[in-house]
Amino acid sequence: MTTPCVKVIYLVGVKKMTDCQGDGEGTNSPMEVYEKLTAQGEEVRALKTAKAEKAEIDAAVQLLLKLKVDYKQLTGQDYKAGCPPSETCVAPDNRPSADGANDEDTVDPWNVSTSNAKGVDYDKLIVRFGSSKIDQELVDRIEKVSGQKPHHFLRRGIFFSHRDMHQVLDAYEKHKSFYLYTGRGPSSDSMHVGHLIPFIFTKWLQDVFDIPLVIQLTDDEKYLWKDLTLEECHRYAVENAKDIIACGFDVNKTFIFSDLEYMGASPEFYRNVVKIQKHVTFNQVKGIFGFTDSDCIGKISFPAIQAAPSFSNSFPQIFKGRKDIQCLIPCAIDQDPYFRMTRDVAPRIGHPKPALLHSTFFPALQGAQTKMSASDANSSIFLTDTPKQIKNKVNKHAFSGGKDTVEEHRKYGGNPDVDVAFMYLTFFLEDDEQLEKIRQDYISGALLTGELKKLLIETLQPIISQHREQRKKVTDERVKHFMTPRPLNFNF
Amino acid sequence: MTTPCVKVIYLVGVKKMTDCQGDGEGTNSPMEVYEKLTAQGEEVRALKTAKAEKAEIDAAVQLLLKLKVDYKQLTGQDYKAGCPPSETCVAPDNRPSADGANDEDTVDPWNVSTSNAKGVDYDKLIVRFGSSKIDQELVDRIEKVSGQKPHHFLRRGIFFSHRDMHQVLDAYEKHKSFYLYTGRGPSSDSMHVGHLIPFIFTKWLQDVFDIPLVIQLTDDEKYLWKDLTLEECHRYAVENAKDIIACGFDVNKTFIFSDLEYMGASPEFYRNVVKIQKHVTFNQVKGIFGFTDSDCIGKISFPAIQAAPSFSNSFPQIFKGRKDIQCLIPCAIDQDPYFRMTRDVAPRIGHPKPALLHSTFFPALQGAQTKMSASDANSSIFLTDTPKQIKNKVNKHAFSGGKDTVEEHRKYGGNPDVDVAFMYLTFFLEDDEQLEKIRQDYISGALLTGELKKLLIETLQPIISQHREQRKKVTDERVKHFMTPRPLNFNF
Repeated sequence: MTTPCVKVIYLVGVKKMTDCQGDGEGTNSPMEVYEKLTAQGEEVRALKTAKAEKAEIDAAVQLLLKLKVDYKQLTGQDYKAGCPPSETCVAPDNRPSADGANDEDTVDPWNVSTSNAKGVDYDKLIVRFGSSKIDQELVDRIEKVSGQKPHHFLRRGIFFSHRDMHQVLDAYEKHKSFYLYTGRGPSSDSMHVGHLIPFIFTKWLQDVFDIPLVIQLTDDEKYLWKDLTLEECHRYAVENAKDIIACGFDVNKTFIFSDLEYMGASPEFYRNVVKIQKHVTFNQVKGIFGFTDSDCIGKISFPAIQAAPSFSNSFPQIFKGRKDIQCLIPCAIDQDPYFRMTRDVAPRIGHPKPALLHSTFFPALQGAQTKMSASDANSSIFLTDTPKQIKNKVNKHAFSGGKDTVEEHRKYGGNPDVDVAFMYLTFFLEDDEQLEKIRQDYISGALLTGELKKLLIETLQPIISQHREQRKKVTDERVKHFMTPRPLNFNF
Repeated sequence: MTTPCVKVIYLVGVKKMTDCQGDGEGTNSPMEVYEKLTAQGEEVRALKTAKAEKAEIDAAVQLLLKLKVDYKQLTGQDYKAGCPPSETCVAPDNRPSADGANDEDTVDPWNVSTSNAKGVDYDKLIVRFGSSKIDQELVDRIEKVSGQKPHHFLRRGIFFSHRDMHQVLDAYEKHKSFYLYTGRGPSSDSMHVGHLIPFIFTKWLQDVFDIPLVIQLTDDEKYLWKDLTLEECHRYAVENAKDIIACGFDVNKTFIFSDLEYMGASPEFYRNVVKIQKHVTFNQVKGIFGFTDSDCIGKISFPAIQAAPSFSNSFPQIFKGRKDIQCLIPCAIDQDPYFRMTRDVAPRIGHPKPALLHSTFFPALQGAQTKMSASDANSSIFLTDTPKQIKNKVNKHAFSGGKDTVEEHRKYGGNPDVDVAFMYLTFFLEDDEQLEKIRQDYISGALLTGELKKLLIETLQPIISQHREQRKKVTDERVKHFMTPRPLNFNF
């Protein structure tokens, strides 16, 4: 199963991290990556020999692993020391690499790719990122503590991984509240259905736990990474805020902010940014995010800006200056590197580590291993699509797990695990029994691909129409209200 | 002659740039610097071979030169490729290096040192930094345009170097106004007389040209570089503001701001910071400032924050959003690297390049080649010193250019060029004729060291006393007024 995504959807359109001036990693040749890998291997050895700090060694190893993945993608071969890339130099074996790196999938804030039609291998990702699986026990516990039936994103493993969720629930049981933080990188004014996933889930969390929510729109990040003006990025932030508000958030419990506005409106926020920036070295962000010397200093320091909302005193108007309120971040797993960094820094500057709930990625219509692109209107269903466009897109572009002919399909059945229409239904069809029946019928061959797609179309059309109606009602004034720093209806 | 210093005085207390975690360059062995040099030499060759952009090559060359200076300081030998540092490996010659680097003096925002008792060789610095000398023609022109006798800091070459000052005067003659920007890094609440120099001169400039002035207190920088809390740095900023205000600035024409406050109070300021950060790479700041991979990301991105006040739309309350008002920055020459970077970025983001007036450094009591240190109370005259303390410090610690005995002094005369009491008089004694007479009498031996020191004591005591009186009158409310973003008495 594959799933939602906070910011990755737009970002995956960028093939590789590129420098502000456009001379970044994106243009690396196999030999350049090979040389970087060799140098990085030496660095790791040197750090270990010098008994460097664990965080520094870990960061260097992370970069090494990332380079190995890049190398494999670029050359189709495993990296082997002393064996530069060439047609004749074949990789000697295909055993999993000893360092535990997943050679198939690449997952970082700017790059998600896999060669598997079922999507990224999330179990491997949990091991690689060092997070914990959301198992039945945790789902049951959320039900017990919240007193509500778990959201189908939890029941179906769409939110599949976490950090410290048990700790959040322990405290909540003792009447210690927490707050939610999620975000979005506004790189265009068009959002697609996948973008709604984290907000739908965050709204559910807010409703069942009755807690404050802050939503960061990283318009500064989009300016730094993309060929856009500050004004464009900020305009996209405001447009995206309308789509977020249309999800039904309560203005008395929710603060939405654009970095370009809020940084200049809150000395407390900037103070946390500077504190974080003092406690993270270039070596560390190089290891975590793969930055290079050719990257602009804005990119290099940006992770601190995404980290700062994890600390409650970044919002003095909401938390009355308290710095001890626990933060829970629902986000797509590709955003985890930011928060690994944040969790490393938090105790050193006197804050609790933010807890996390990670989602899988939302697949492109063309299949779970291809990327959605904001510039390719056919790669997803956009929130502005008409019922007719939805129908056409699903029928024409949704990758099918069915057989080539009706006869074959009836005989052998379809494969829901790679079928995009079925994947989308796992996100948007709430009825578990109906979904399971569809799955069984598709496997048995009783349900044809056209019929499955029809079910998806009938599910999506009213959702999108309703969203469009709700969005129309969001006035500029209402957006301004959501985006004004102010107290919320909570006592801290 | 040696002279003032905006921020260097405190900064020179830091021997070398050190990482936030304390594992920076400061602990480098000769072999480490040798290896860095070798690597950097290769980088420069590689960039040239690859026909990289000029700015990138220049930055790499600058770092190379800086490393050569460090190496010479550390080992006493010139760097020679292929010849690692050792007792037996002597430098083959002492000719000036072909690349034009000044092997004697180190001048950057964190490090000023020289082996010459007369102080830094400023003529060489002009060549190295690529600025222009303030010659008699320019001094005469300032007199003509302003209609005022040039300040003795100009007449005596204390402000000795500039960038684009003629352009500023050309525009001013055509009734196109400009504004002044200077600053200070508040790393303690005690300031010494040397710290007053740039403010005395800036006030004179403001008075004769009748233009707005913005003064940046980089409390964020001090937090990033020093082992201080945010609260301490901000408190020092406010205390230092009192000393600055005591220099007599007009609250209707002057805006003083702390970064920690103003960044969170002006979206326009942050927008300029992000714009600059997008247009400067790590390679560039590495070359300009000598940052390393072990430096924290706060230091790496800080130069953009010192650059931003050079652009008038960082202060919309003063300039009504206009981005075309020319900025003139009076500062000590060690701050020039920040503004070389700023001038490189300015045209790429649609702003005029800031013009500069550079001052020499203010010498420590112990001599022009030693560093003043805020932690050594005897290295300078502090603004809180009593008349008695001033007398004792000058008599006991001011390095003398006189002879060992009265007899020898009468016979051979003293050397004012290395005499700190005489140097201080060039800063604080306004009467040119009296100063020249003192110089002649000292050279001839008619004036003894004790008598020269007495003249300095009698000059300094009333200046410090008057400053202390003025400072007492500066109320918290008045500081708040100066530090509140607001319109000034100018129409733009």
